[in-house]
Amino acid sequence: MKKRAVCILSGGMDSTLASYMAKDEGYDIIAVHFNYGQRTEKRELKAFRDICEDLQIKEKYEIDIPFFTQIGASALTDKSIDVPVDGLESGVPITYVPFRNGIFLSIATAIAEKESANALFIGVVEEDSSGYPDCTDDFIKSITNTINVGTKESTVLEIKTPLVHLMKDEIVLKALELNVPLNLTWSCYKEEEEACGVCDSCRLRLNGFKKANSEDKIPYKVK
Amino acid sequence: MKKRAVCILSGGMDSTLASYMAKDEGYDIIAVHFNYGQRTEKRELKAFRDICEDLQIKEKYEIDIPFFTQIGASALTDKSIDVPVDGLESGVPITYVPFRNGIFLSIATAIAEKESANALFIGVVEEDSSGYPDCTDDFIKSITNTINVGTKESTVLEIKTPLVHLMKDEIVLKALELNVPLNLTWSCYKEEEEACGVCDSCRLRLNGFKKANSEDKIPYKVK
Repeated sequence: MKKRAVCILSGGMDSTLASYMAKDEGYDIIAVHFNYGQRTEKRELKAFRDICEDLQIKEKYEIDIPFFTQIGASALTDKSIDVPVDGLESGVPITYVPFRNGIFLSIATAIAEKESANALFIGVVEEDSSGYPDCTDDFIKSITNTINVGTKESTVLEIKTPLVHLMKDEIVLKALELNVPLNLTWSCYKEEEEACGVCDSCRLRLNGFKKANSEDKIPYKVK
Repeated sequence: MKKRAVCILSGGMDSTLASYMAKDEGYDIIAVHFNYGQRTEKRELKAFRDICEDLQIKEKYEIDIPFFTQIGASALTDKSIDVPVDGLESGVPITYVPFRNGIFLSIATAIAEKESANALFIGVVEEDSSGYPDCTDDFIKSITNTINVGTKESTVLEIKTPLVHLMKDEIVLKALELNVPLNLTWSCYKEEEEACGVCDSCRLRLNGFKKANSEDKIPYKVK
């Protein structure tokens, strides 16, 4: 039987590249997207669907998780907290959504168990990231053990994080090498029509393109 | 500051006892309940609210997680699969909801991080359980590490499982000792008016009361 992977696909550059790498490695892909009340929920969902079409993915899950807005505590899900636009802070930024990747990977595990998948792909980036604790290699190692202990014996899952030690410019270069349609992806934390160009996510993305001597073709308000 | 615990409270006997034990240990309780499309969702929610009232809990979260019915694969959340009534099988039963406690604990972690709690209480039972892989001591040890690695440095959480090595009759006896109103709790997997008396959960409960020489005061169809 062909090997199967559940790919967590937000529609941003990182998760998109991770999904194309999964395909490149020969996996059949089950794509999972989360609508969690993030500010750019609709735009990210469009990106997800566009990318699934480009990847010709047959099985996809669009999962609604309304509780992040109930929990709040992040500028991404709590509209009373502004998204910072003045550059990266040190420490864990206010855009951190409490234990988001822990929750995403747990739900992806349930789907993988149901679908008899062999691997989970997640596009976490430790090196050049926004400083989120749930994007580190140590976290991924620990949760890999947890999900294998906490599921049926017949469920054996590897978590693949092909981007974890890449810098953003390396991500852009790798995506270009694999013909990933980066113009379909969306990274901005704030806007849905034109990317703001100044939130942390836009800054990281633009900086990656600049260092890779490449042009980002999505529309920006400020660039 | 008084120590604070997030208690996962389904409204069954085990999680209810765990919450009373948390109170007995001096914790301020933040109660969390999950509506996940389980067959007896409404009855469990009533039990949760009744118990919160008895415990005089001020902070409570009722969390809707609609995706389990989308994932299916369990007799509890997929109405096309019957709940077994012929006694406990060996191995992982069909009522197992893929990685449910992993998902519950991940969401509870996000709440605990927001609420600056010190502990999570969960009423998992390994010894005399239904054979679920996400109810074991090994699983709890592993996920404790995962949630501490994957959250902010200032978030330090202990997972307390005061029932993990108890048998059902010991749970009944401990509950009686602490004056836990077991008549408010609900365990049946199938019915919401009168407990069926024959599903695995009713069997375990009734057997616990019998061994403890005590009477279960909730209504049963068959006893």
